[in-house]
Amino acid sequence: MPRPANPLVRERLLDAGLTLFHARGINAVGIKEITDTAGVPKGSFYSYYDSKNHFVAAVIDHYWSSVVRDQSLLLTDTSAPPLRRLVAFFETLTQEHAQRGFALGCLLGNFALELTDDNGEARQRLADIMDHWSALIGACLAQARSTGAVTASTETTELASMIIESWEGAVMRGRVDRSRVPFDRFLTVSLPRLLGAAQLSV
Amino acid sequence: MPRPANPLVRERLLDAGLTLFHARGINAVGIKEITDTAGVPKGSFYSYYDSKNHFVAAVIDHYWSSVVRDQSLLLTDTSAPPLRRLVAFFETLTQEHAQRGFALGCLLGNFALELTDDNGEARQRLADIMDHWSALIGACLAQARSTGAVTASTETTELASMIIESWEGAVMRGRVDRSRVPFDRFLTVSLPRLLGAAQLSV
Repeated sequence: MPRPANPLVRERLLDAGLTLFHARGINAVGIKEITDTAGVPKGSFYSYYDSKNHFVAAVIDHYWSSVVRDQSLLLTDTSAPPLRRLVAFFETLTQEHAQRGFALGCLLGNFALELTDDNGEARQRLADIMDHWSALIGACLAQARSTGAVTASTETTELASMIIESWEGAVMRGRVDRSRVPFDRFLTVSLPRLLGAAQLSV
Repeated sequence: MPRPANPLVRERLLDAGLTLFHARGINAVGIKEITDTAGVPKGSFYSYYDSKNHFVAAVIDHYWSSVVRDQSLLLTDTSAPPLRRLVAFFETLTQEHAQRGFALGCLLGNFALELTDDNGEARQRLADIMDHWSALIGACLAQARSTGAVTASTETTELASMIIESWEGAVMRGRVDRSRVPFDRFLTVSLPRLLGAAQLSV
């Protein structure tokens, strides 16, 4: 009879997976290393996940719900003007990258470039979360447009996607150069231009 | 006595590495698979490269000299106006991604997100090539500025870097979604906006 799932073990596996995958990528990390880091027997992994691919999909969810969602609260805090929230969101992400020496990149971006056709479930989860992220930023942009702070005519979810894509490219370059320069030019030049403003007066 | 290096074997190793790394990433591909694909004995690998990391750096050079440089000739063909060349360059890259079903991403971007501090030499090579790419596009933008076609005040190599970063993010999203949508919005919206134009009249 299979033992009942232990939520604490599941959480430890997910935390271990998140840390190891973020530092070294999916392919470089084996299941034994994940269970060792989590402090559980290797065999117990398969009580929780059918496959590494299934686990990767769960790590993506875990990253979104435990890490990104906290920061995305900045986007929905209506006590601040929408563009101020948007800038605060990306400034906070930039600080986190700075704390890691710009060395790890964005987990979602890293996964995006490592997942192949063999990882159907995980890739679909990633696509859903990218869409969700675009929608969150898009809602913030729609509020900014209603106040006249954004004049660009592009549909706001599309505009949000372009902003996220510029951001992910900046994170990538920052990782190659171990530098904040791409982050700063995203915040001071790319973001305002994509929004159709010479600069963001927030 | 070590056998003299055979340029054909070296070329076959590099071609095999390029194809395999592009399809599945660096970490997922072992040296035996590379030598098998190249049709050479595994031991011969080490007559050419001290380590996998050294080989990865050589594959980056090979990619630049055999693939990207051909396309970058589009950027330096002074028979066309500079912004027309820039758009043609990214349109050509988009066509290549389309031919691969948007499934593989950009080799440079993939490497950027897979290389860690353990890959110092390869990461430095990647940084150099990204700088070189920025300089090529920057030179094209400087010509566009001299003719009044670009009005954005940002220094042209910086502007080129932002364009490349937006492009790399679009390639990443296109890979997640297996879609040309991010490529099209890069060409029709992000690129003109980053250049400070409502649209590119080229």
